[in-house]
Amino acid sequence: MDLPSTTLAQAVEALASLPGVGRRTALRMALHLLKEPPDEVARMAESIHRLATDIHYCSLCHCVSDGDLCPICSSPKRVQNTICVVENVKDVMAVENTQQYRGLYHVLGGVISPIEGVGIRDLNIGTLLNRVQQGIPAPVEEVILALPTTMEGDTTNYYLNKQLKPLGVKVSVIACGVPLGDNLEYADEITLGRSIVNRIPFV
Amino acid sequence: MDLPSTTLAQAVEALASLPGVGRRTALRMALHLLKEPPDEVARMAESIHRLATDIHYCSLCHCVSDGDLCPICSSPKRVQNTICVVENVKDVMAVENTQQYRGLYHVLGGVISPIEGVGIRDLNIGTLLNRVQQGIPAPVEEVILALPTTMEGDTTNYYLNKQLKPLGVKVSVIACGVPLGDNLEYADEITLGRSIVNRIPFV
Repeated sequence: MDLPSTTLAQAVEALASLPGVGRRTALRMALHLLKEPPDEVARMAESIHRLATDIHYCSLCHCVSDGDLCPICSSPKRVQNTICVVENVKDVMAVENTQQYRGLYHVLGGVISPIEGVGIRDLNIGTLLNRVQQGIPAPVEEVILALPTTMEGDTTNYYLNKQLKPLGVKVSVIACGVPLGDNLEYADEITLGRSIVNRIPFV
Repeated sequence: MDLPSTTLAQAVEALASLPGVGRRTALRMALHLLKEPPDEVARMAESIHRLATDIHYCSLCHCVSDGDLCPICSSPKRVQNTICVVENVKDVMAVENTQQYRGLYHVLGGVISPIEGVGIRDLNIGTLLNRVQQGIPAPVEEVILALPTTMEGDTTNYYLNKQLKPLGVKVSVIACGVPLGDNLEYADEITLGRSIVNRIPFV
């Protein structure tokens, strides 16, 4: 597909670098933008550009933020003695959307993965241990590990637990089991197995 | 979903304005961009910005172009006496991809649609008639109407034919029928009906 304009071709190439966007979709997007008012397109480019220049991370939990502290870390309404450890910013939002958690977060920025070359030093583990040790922003009672239920997540959970336990903090991990509304026959055997092993008293 | 950063929220909003992109996908894109090298994100924003500022249209066929004439209009290899009329730039590429057409194009920029408020004056019809009348860039022998096979496309075809015929040019329209590789039972009755009415001698 030879495009008749270099400007268009470059925009298509740029858009096609987005996840889940192929060249055909990128072309559709670019042609859509051509029909939009130029100042709106410029504004869009500007907000993408700001992702490269203006983004800040919370100095406490490493979530994206406007200022030094993110809205969650700076909110007095949040329970200060509980830290939920997640892999990335998306997971903060996923947990927030459940409306079941009122504590603070800590974004690791990944999970330990020798295959992808992600080691302990690549993750925000030092600052987590520091928060627990120094009691920042308040003495920590519980750390909830909410990492992916994958091999890498399990490995990271194991390592974090080993580091956190000696600091005298309660360490818990999110429950793994059959999703709500699922028939048992559709659950894979490992998930079903875990849900049996981790059964809880019927209230 | 409350985002912890205004910069991120604005980027998500901008990306969600793209066709086929919802807020969830836009968030995935924005978080992907956060992980990319900043100069790459800046380059992407730049190419989108250029869509607003740097795009040119061919003075002859109204296709997007780098200079005054698009690569097709300025190519000596193209058949100069045939013009294929299409709705938009995407359709130029669609016809080009068939590798069955070696003539020139004329991009209308839409089709007549009273419902969407698109009238004759909103389309590049005047310049088309001018090209045929004045023989630009060469005396025109045939105009091929390759507009959408919709009510609006049909209306536009009808109007263009009425305007073009008196100029002594051959006017043809692309064939409408059963797509290649389709079972007849899957074709809708109007398409199948047209393919019977427009049957051609078996060679």
